[in-house]
Amino acid sequence: MWAYEKRLQYPINIKKKNLKMAKLLVTQYGGSNGELAAALRYLNQRYTMPDDKGRALLTDIGTEELAHVEMIQTMINQLLKDASFEELKNAGLDSHYAEHKNALYPTDANGVPFTVTYFATTGNPLADLMEDMAAEEKARAVYENLIDLAEDEDIIAPLLWLRQREVVHFNRFKSLYEEYKNKGY
Amino acid sequence: MWAYEKRLQYPINIKKKNLKMAKLLVTQYGGSNGELAAALRYLNQRYTMPDDKGRALLTDIGTEELAHVEMIQTMINQLLKDASFEELKNAGLDSHYAEHKNALYPTDANGVPFTVTYFATTGNPLADLMEDMAAEEKARAVYENLIDLAEDEDIIAPLLWLRQREVVHFNRFKSLYEEYKNKGY
Amino acid sequence: MWAYEKRLQYPINIKKKNLKMAKLLVTQYGGSNGELAAALRYLNQRYTMPDDKGRALLTDIGTEELAHVEMIQTMINQLLKDASFEELKNAGLDSHYAEHKNALYPTDANGVPFTVTYFATTGNPLADLMEDMAAEEKARAVYENLIDLAEDEDIIAPLLWLRQREVVHFNRFKSLYEEYKNKGY
Amino acid sequence: MWAYEKRLQYPINIKKKNLKMAKLLVTQYGGSNGELAAALRYLNQRYTMPDDKGRALLTDIGTEELAHVEMIQTMINQLLKDASFEELKNAGLDSHYAEHKNALYPTDANGVPFTVTYFATTGNPLADLMEDMAAEEKARAVYENLIDLAEDEDIIAPLLWLRQREVVHFNRFKSLYEEYKNKGY
Amino acid sequence: MWAYEKRLQYPINIKKKNLKMAKLLVTQYGGSNGELAAALRYLNQRYTMPDDKGRALLTDIGTEELAHVEMIQTMINQLLKDASFEELKNAGLDSHYAEHKNALYPTDANGVPFTVTYFATTGNPLADLMEDMAAEEKARAVYENLIDLAEDEDIIAPLLWLRQREVVHFNRFKSLYEEYKNKGY
Amino acid sequence: MWAYEKRLQYPINIKKKNLKMAKLLVTQYGGSNGELAAALRYLNQRYTMPDDKGRALLTDIGTEELAHVEMIQTMINQLLKDASFEELKNAGLDSHYAEHKNALYPTDANGVPFTVTYFATTGNPLADLMEDMAAEEKARAVYENLIDLAEDEDIIAPLLWLRQREVVHFNRFKSLYEEYKNKGY
Repeated sequence: MWAYEKRLQYPINIKKKNLKMAKLLVTQYGGSNGELAAALRYLNQRYTMPDDKGRALLTDIGTEELAHVEMIQTMINQLLKDASFEELKNAGLDSHYAEHKNALYPTDANGVPFTVTYFATTGNPLADLMEDMAAEEKARAVYENLIDLAEDEDIIAPLLWLRQREVVHFNRFKSLYEEYKNKGY
Repeated sequence: MWAYEKRLQYPINIKKKNLKMAKLLVTQYGGSNGELAAALRYLNQRYTMPDDKGRALLTDIGTEELAHVEMIQTMINQLLKDASFEELKNAGLDSHYAEHKNALYPTDANGVPFTVTYFATTGNPLADLMEDMAAEEKARAVYENLIDLAEDEDIIAPLLWLRQREVVHFNRFKSLYEEYKNKGY
Repeated sequence: MWAYEKRLQYPINIKKKNLKMAKLLVTQYGGSNGELAAALRYLNQRYTMPDDKGRALLTDIGTEELAHVEMIQTMINQLLKDASFEELKNAGLDSHYAEHKNALYPTDANGVPFTVTYFATTGNPLADLMEDMAAEEKARAVYENLIDLAEDEDIIAPLLWLRQREVVHFNRFKSLYEEYKNKGY
Repeated sequence: MWAYEKRLQYPINIKKKNLKMAKLLVTQYGGSNGELAAALRYLNQRYTMPDDKGRALLTDIGTEELAHVEMIQTMINQLLKDASFEELKNAGLDSHYAEHKNALYPTDANGVPFTVTYFATTGNPLADLMEDMAAEEKARAVYENLIDLAEDEDIIAPLLWLRQREVVHFNRFKSLYEEYKNKGY
Repeated sequence: MWAYEKRLQYPINIKKKNLKMAKLLVTQYGGSNGELAAALRYLNQRYTMPDDKGRALLTDIGTEELAHVEMIQTMINQLLKDASFEELKNAGLDSHYAEHKNALYPTDANGVPFTVTYFATTGNPLADLMEDMAAEEKARAVYENLIDLAEDEDIIAPLLWLRQREVVHFNRFKSLYEEYKNKGY
Repeated sequence: MWAYEKRLQYPINIKKKNLKMAKLLVTQYGGSNGELAAALRYLNQRYTMPDDKGRALLTDIGTEELAHVEMIQTMINQLLKDASFEELKNAGLDSHYAEHKNALYPTDANGVPFTVTYFATTGNPLADLMEDMAAEEKARAVYENLIDLAEDEDIIAPLLWLRQREVVHFNRFKSLYEEYKNKGY
């Protein structure tokens, strides 16, 4: 089980409105390579890792990805919450306003709702860890695309930090993959 | 952010194999009225509750639902993990074995993958809380169906406990709904 | 069975083109909280209401929601039908034109096709009626968002009328829910 | 708008339980070639038929398909409503029971929820009518498959009648298609 | 099996950037009436055509549709590949950039991912061929919509050629349909 | 473009009926880790590989995966084509018969239709190649599960051969990944 701590893993404090950026950031919430897909993938796969070390690693990274979901949610919320409907309309977010007003919803950047078909679990530790490595690489690539599109330091700083976490996770998964490969799984 | 505590909210200890039950329980993991839908719904909606009390309530219940997801995952895992593929085959879980071996995957009881279209967020606190009350009622009804289908006390006891939690959550949402209604939201 | 009457439940007569509004209104046709979801939900659930009164109520409201679908379709059609492809293009409806020309299609405001995963049926009368109450509240909220976004009286008047019908339906469902609760279902 | 008449277009009176047949019949409710897809397709496409005759034909057949949806719903309901959960379990409908108890839900025969991606609308009258002709042919083929699978006259008789209606609709669509083709649409 | 020939079925050589057109053309790649749906539909249905002639026709047209997929992919790639992210942003393709950078992805014009629910296979040769005729008509209609929206000859010429191929395929399917109908299938 | 050669990449000749196996094999046709997902993934990603070598590799392997799709289709067809509807019914394939008779359809082993959300394309060559490596590992794992479930040598032999091809592809992708990593992409 999890205990909630009322703080973000990395501080978010966006002072300048940028509604278009909200529409793009959402892909790291509900898109195919986003944080929610990562969290659910690892917390789902952990049960069939072959030893305690593997189960602990997936639980640990899965739990951290939940914190990343919260960071992305907070960024989107800060970008949306004080916007008048006129501003949302002018930023091309009128379809968002029609359905969700100023609220969040887990979709990709085109508004397609999140689905777990974005990840797979085969029960084979090598295949599942390779999928996890790929997930981290894809999330890193999407963070790089978002950093290209952002201009505000308040947005760029947490994105850079999140991108770096994907690299750390990739290396941890790779190290376990190699250990399991050597053990002949 | 969340800190993981290495214990379940309520103990799970299933001693007797029942693979068919695993196939049914999964609906409370990845089905339309299940725990994952509940957790993601509340953690998504909390940002547009109109005051701290509302945000805290949705964070609190959302966090507890994550613990319920873990309980259901653990039940399914205990039912699947030691099963030979012959046993999985005989229990009609050969399609599960083909794709996931002994691993988990968040679907409904027919194998349809989880999607967030199972819940909505309108940004209107009364509409969102009424949807949450409905979610709790629907989850309660599904627990009652599963309890009908179960025969093993090791399965029934946690299901009864989880069912009871839905009733508690329903009442907490109802109380907030009425408070907000009186305040004229 | 149903007999078609060649008139709308409430008159629609939009004289001023507003193609952007067509793109938003579609959410009440094929979106998660829209009229089609409502109609199909009630006409599906009616079979397991526990008495004639419940079955009649769901049939009655379900039939009215079909008439609301037709009103929304007519509004969208009046907004789209005489538009040249240049006008559709300039209003950002070129992706609509590419696929559907001036025709209708049941999607949400982002173009995501309608799916029945937007509603649930548990077979438990209290859970199903609570879901129906939530559906009415969510549809009301979406009508309020659309009324915010609209400027033309020819659009606003039917939306206000439809919003009011959701309130009426909510109260009818609530009254039956309470009756069934008292009866101990 | 539509007025509900409290009778079925063709009488349904199934006296012998056959739960497996309920699981198959559902494809004509929520499957890709079923009655719901047909009703929504025609009622959606009618707005862009080029003349009153075309609009009236699609409204007329669309309205009849709603009555066919109700017939299929009634058949499934008669097959499910008095079944104990033990009977549902023994007939392999335990996953249905877990989620829906004895209630209905619009899916295909594998339990995949209905989606409007099963039909298209291009706004081109010839293309849309050809799609409608194909829809009638496909529904006819599925009725023939279901008749092969059925053994009870109470089930076979309405299926034969419904199959015949598809042939009638096909011919009406074909005739309009040819008229429009000759007119140079 | 297939041997790849390193040339396009019809030459593509787009010299003028038009990023908005890329966003529309994608519907003939991953949309409901597009080339990928056609290729997979025919290559899937061919196994249950009743004779060698039918199987050969569906294999032949299915193989050609794969070449059409490649033509559309090439058009989209030529329109996207040299675009800076600033240009993609200005053309409203920032959501595409966030997720896919300059790469392709099979969706409809709204960004909804491709699904095989866009086509059906009943195993009945007449129903399946009628569906194929409808598919060709719908693809033709979409090409006509795209030609309306295009202004560049380098884009229009291959679209006109592709449109013409749909007419040829329609006639080949129609001829086989009539032959099979006469044979009493 | 592709030229069709009327032979399979590896011979399929299944002499003994095994309808249950048909239901499982389909996951390598339309499931998340199957051959169709692989073929479409590589043929989609090839356009943004940074050099001719990369584009050629993805075209080559993508083309081979089309041949694997055909092999799996042929296996399923040989298992289904001569089966009477009684046999299909007894093997639990009555829901397949209802919708598709003896024909094929690209789904996973639960009957969920294929969708391209099973794969991603980021436009980043390292992320895309890592996803391809993961795809090969996951397909290998699923082949191993299917080989466990199979008993007939006529089925096992092509599955072993296909499994081996996944290993070869994995190594080719890995080698290109490392080359690109060294080049600093």
